Amino acid sequence: MTKKIEFYFDIISPYSFLAHKKISEIEKTKKILFSYKPILLGGLHNLLEITAPAFVKSKNKYLSSDCMMVAKKYNIDFKFNDKFPISSLDIMRGLLIIDKKKIKDYINSFFEAYWSMNIDLSKKNEIIKILNNLEIDTDNFFFKIKDNKIKEVLKKLTHEAFQKDIFGAPTFIVNNKIFWGQDRLEYAVDEFEKN
Amino acid sequence: MTKKIEFYFDIISPYSFLAHKKISEIEKTKKILFSYKPILLGGLHNLLEITAPAFVKSKNKYLSSDCMMVAKKYNIDFKFNDKFPISSLDIMRGLLIIDKKKIKDYINSFFEAYWSMNIDLSKKNEIIKILNNLEIDTDNFFFKIKDNKIKEVLKKLTHEAFQKDIFGAPTFIVNNKIFWGQDRLEYAVDEFEKN
Repeated sequence: MTKKIEFYFDIISPYSFLAHKKISEIEKTKKILFSYKPILLGGLHNLLEITAPAFVKSKNKYLSSDCMMVAKKYNIDFKFNDKFPISSLDIMRGLLIIDKKKIKDYINSFFEAYWSMNIDLSKKNEIIKILNNLEIDTDNFFFKIKDNKIKEVLKKLTHEAFQKDIFGAPTFIVNNKIFWGQDRLEYAVDEFEKN
Repeated sequence: MTKKIEFYFDIISPYSFLAHKKISEIEKTKKILFSYKPILLGGLHNLLEITAPAFVKSKNKYLSSDCMMVAKKYNIDFKFNDKFPISSLDIMRGLLIIDKKKIKDYINSFFEAYWSMNIDLSKKNEIIKILNNLEIDTDNFFFKIKDNKIKEVLKKLTHEAFQKDIFGAPTFIVNNKIFWGQDRLEYAVDEFEKN
């Protein structure tokens, strides 16, 4: 099995975005294989029976200032989205049905739209604009993401994450060890480089 | 008002211990005034109506490995306590009634007993041993911590933290800005040194 760092993420998660940007930087200088693993963070919180930080008033308030602080430190172009939180269901399902070659650009485009450009991705027309830029057939896209099989795949991926004791995003897994939070990416890289 | 970094903590919190140890290191080289602010973490979680990480199975499991990882990185003598979690109520109340000159040693002794020496602080005789070492009159201690006024003081301090939008421990406050988690101590120090 090829050694890799698994990266569990949801487009809705600001810390996942920050981790994604840090990963892009790491990929420029290090030979590390990152495997992007989509999950639905809301679904994971439901399985855990916990309240998401976004729904605890003081935590939500802190979230934006903390993310801005981290983004500034790492020189990441970041704007806390005015419409946070929204449902990322369509976007995360879409990830499962598009051409594999487009996945990287798809993830990056939606992450940047939501966390750099402050775009309201709860609006279908905003999603369509991004899909058009990526040359993804929008009719086919919206038809396929309604397929029950696709719905089940995302549920399954989220449930698998839950069963692996993942409880938030971003989470990294290397050598079966869990690292939670963008703050832990460097530890995950250390673990990757250990042997 | 003297500029300082407020440090909200509970002896029961492993990340508070790690932050406390980092603070001790910082105090050796930098002229920063840290003000230790006791709170009851369990009480804070109740006010927030959230489930503490210790009571979410996967989070609790991760907690110990994550703390060990951070401790190793910062060369902190750490052992995740076999009896975690316990109630820190008596210890945190005690902090409010002892001689001010002994507070620093008191905090350090209980932090180290629980998070370095794996001592079961749910046992009264273990608390007594530590109080004896600190030359604190134990009869007087256990009498005073049962005083309703003292109970109310700890409740009040916890409630004040809640009203300041603090939602966990450790939390640092500098220039009215909140920094949550031992990972954010360096950001708090940066904020302190800004002007």
